[in-house]
Amino acid sequence: MKDAALGYAQAQQAQALDDLLALVAIPSVSTSPAHQPDMARAAQWVADYCQRIGLHNVAVMPTALHPLVYAEWLEAGDDAFTLLLYGHYDVQPADPIEKWHTLPFEPTLKGENLFARGASDDKGQFLAVLKAVEAYLQTSGRLPINVKVFIEGEEEISSPSMGEFIKQHQTQLACDAILICDHPMLAADTPMMYYGVRGNCYMQITVRGPGQDLHSGLYGGAVDNPMNVLARLLAQIQDGITHRILIPGFYDRICDIDDEEKALLNDNLFVSADILKMQTGVPAEAGETGYTLAERLAVRPTFEVCGIGGGFTGEGKKTVIPAEAFAKLSMRLVPDQDPREIADLTQLYLSSRLPSTVTMEVEYLGGSHPVVVDYRHPAVQAAHQAYQQVYGKPAVLMRGGGSLPLMWDFQQILRAPIVMMGMGLPDDNLHSPNEKFFLPNYYRGTETIIHYFDLLAAQA
Amino acid sequence: MKDAALGYAQAQQAQALDDLLALVAIPSVSTSPAHQPDMARAAQWVADYCQRIGLHNVAVMPTALHPLVYAEWLEAGDDAFTLLLYGHYDVQPADPIEKWHTLPFEPTLKGENLFARGASDDKGQFLAVLKAVEAYLQTSGRLPINVKVFIEGEEEISSPSMGEFIKQHQTQLACDAILICDHPMLAADTPMMYYGVRGNCYMQITVRGPGQDLHSGLYGGAVDNPMNVLARLLAQIQDGITHRILIPGFYDRICDIDDEEKALLNDNLFVSADILKMQTGVPAEAGETGYTLAERLAVRPTFEVCGIGGGFTGEGKKTVIPAEAFAKLSMRLVPDQDPREIADLTQLYLSSRLPSTVTMEVEYLGGSHPVVVDYRHPAVQAAHQAYQQVYGKPAVLMRGGGSLPLMWDFQQILRAPIVMMGMGLPDDNLHSPNEKFFLPNYYRGTETIIHYFDLLAAQA
Repeated sequence: MKDAALGYAQAQQAQALDDLLALVAIPSVSTSPAHQPDMARAAQWVADYCQRIGLHNVAVMPTALHPLVYAEWLEAGDDAFTLLLYGHYDVQPADPIEKWHTLPFEPTLKGENLFARGASDDKGQFLAVLKAVEAYLQTSGRLPINVKVFIEGEEEISSPSMGEFIKQHQTQLACDAILICDHPMLAADTPMMYYGVRGNCYMQITVRGPGQDLHSGLYGGAVDNPMNVLARLLAQIQDGITHRILIPGFYDRICDIDDEEKALLNDNLFVSADILKMQTGVPAEAGETGYTLAERLAVRPTFEVCGIGGGFTGEGKKTVIPAEAFAKLSMRLVPDQDPREIADLTQLYLSSRLPSTVTMEVEYLGGSHPVVVDYRHPAVQAAHQAYQQVYGKPAVLMRGGGSLPLMWDFQQILRAPIVMMGMGLPDDNLHSPNEKFFLPNYYRGTETIIHYFDLLAAQA
Repeated sequence: MKDAALGYAQAQQAQALDDLLALVAIPSVSTSPAHQPDMARAAQWVADYCQRIGLHNVAVMPTALHPLVYAEWLEAGDDAFTLLLYGHYDVQPADPIEKWHTLPFEPTLKGENLFARGASDDKGQFLAVLKAVEAYLQTSGRLPINVKVFIEGEEEISSPSMGEFIKQHQTQLACDAILICDHPMLAADTPMMYYGVRGNCYMQITVRGPGQDLHSGLYGGAVDNPMNVLARLLAQIQDGITHRILIPGFYDRICDIDDEEKALLNDNLFVSADILKMQTGVPAEAGETGYTLAERLAVRPTFEVCGIGGGFTGEGKKTVIPAEAFAKLSMRLVPDQDPREIADLTQLYLSSRLPSTVTMEVEYLGGSHPVVVDYRHPAVQAAHQAYQQVYGKPAVLMRGGGSLPLMWDFQQILRAPIVMMGMGLPDDNLHSPNEKFFLPNYYRGTETIIHYFDLLAAQA
């Protein structure tokens, strides 16, 4: 049964690529109101595909915001292992569009890479998983385990309606484990599994002064400049030398890690300053004093200004004191920091630092809880073996730096372990111009999942 | 002769308005390459007008950048007073365009106000002066003094080619005084004269980190964020409490003012926190500790962030570490600070504070020297009397907060006193959306200049 599925997957690679090309051509940017129709199109595409490969009870299910695609195949029996297959069909915005070498939503093949927004994050990865389902169903008419498919459309905006959705569909979604494929491998021949992810707290701060932009000569020296004030506020959030975050209470809930895990993190040869410099082009690494690079990426929180704007930003000079200035802030969180509490602490701190010469608005734009999973669980160990069978070596275990908002809800409500098997590469340009997916990972990803289903069935 | 001119000016107000409407409709934005043809059109309009009213040797003269309009009438004789009439036909950009209630280059009359970019700064003001010339020439065929007209197109970008132009045309431009009308009155019934202006130093700072925007989850904690660094750099330029500028050497060349001038500045009833709040809408005044509001606006330097940008600034969230971030900085300077020296000191200071994890580019975008004039000079005192004759009271003497780049070149090369007679109002929204000109000031401005020419002739 497994061998037939593997044979099918190999024979059908051209079709698998065609399907992926069709899906990434849909600009399903969840954060943009203008792309609402594209969101609906992408959801429908996924549902049609699930129907086509023989899944049951396929449905585009409405949520408070973006619809979710559900499907299932439960004929392996009540005693069989039930795996929930998670993915997200929404993508990041393409800005800055002028930095793309090809158009973000006109997928372009260059050698073994497919360039398109969403190719790696996450359309290519969840489609690789569904291709494993297709391979079994099209060859044997059945799967070795039960599966439930859950492809959402809000991941890139922190999945605001998913918590409520999972709560309401708790019985329908009940499972023995949850599979998430939405992260990179360490290299094309080196698989990697996350056993945890950082959380996130995203805020927007606006500082307002005069009723409108003022002539900096006529009023300079008489009024406070919202942009000068904003720069000072931002500079007070983090120490410039130690990179410690200065918000009182910010570190209070952070859990220490044990020596075994510290060794696991630091023994990873793929986390190094040299690799980092090669990947990013930065002159030197930077981060919180007292922690290794591996620790800073996995088990330490961060503070980032993700966007800033105000005043005159065109070519040339304009001598104004701007009426207002804003910054978008993102903080990565680690267990057990709580995103709303961090937002509240930040607002309190900034308010206490705000001069009376301006006003400030602080908006919480969303967030996600940090999550950690027991890496010794059998469903995680089976994934290890699956990689071993395809790549000849087990996956490296790491905590992820990015955030998967839904993991918290899955963990809290479904109470099942989360298995994370990445198929991307570190240079996939996630959230950046020129996102791409290395196609051999797409095909080998499907093979790995075919093995994984088989190994899970053997465990049960 | 004077009375005939006054009568003509009064009778021709409708024509004067039509001429101004035609001129402000031309979007002569000097900083914008796209508006080059409009710059040429505006210069030609001014030249045609000078020709039409009977000035001699009218010429649109090329410079290294934007052309300048020259004209003269020198038949009052070698012993007569020669006054150089300065103005600028270029205007500030209209951004943010969405904040205008009417279109910036479709002049709109509302009551006694004319709304248009450039209406007050400076098209309305220099045209009021030329209307005085017209009034004399059209009624008596002559002027009581010699005049030279000098209308440039680079004022809003710090007049980069004017210094060289004045040097090359030193003999042609020789005069006994220079008249500049390019500032506000204190109120519609209260004229004001500047006897000095602050200088300006404009810079752009760009901080660069990774080769492209990075996923803040995957790389947060490993690399420095150019926007975090930029905020820290900006915050280190000025103390948040005292508003002292922290760049070493910044204050070294500043001259103290004597007690007589300090009293002159501080006795001005029109400079007050209440008036400031009403004019700008700020919650409270702000500025350098240890100086009065009047002193801070006139004889103290400033530091302003005029524009800032980087990363994701659209709607919603995007979790990136941006590849770069930039800020546009403007510093107002006072005698004897030198703009290039200040730019050098700033670059030196910021470079010394820059971490090795990013790179920085500092560009000097232009500047102007601060200038002060002897307010006891007869050409200044004659202007006082002219205001007395039209408004029933003399002008209040002040130092201007804004910058007129050319004053330094005039003073250094032509060695003549500069007389500054403003016709704008404090709420003209200079450099802001909804710029306007109060039309009664336009007509009374022309009357005042008619008197001024007559008083200068009597002095000679």
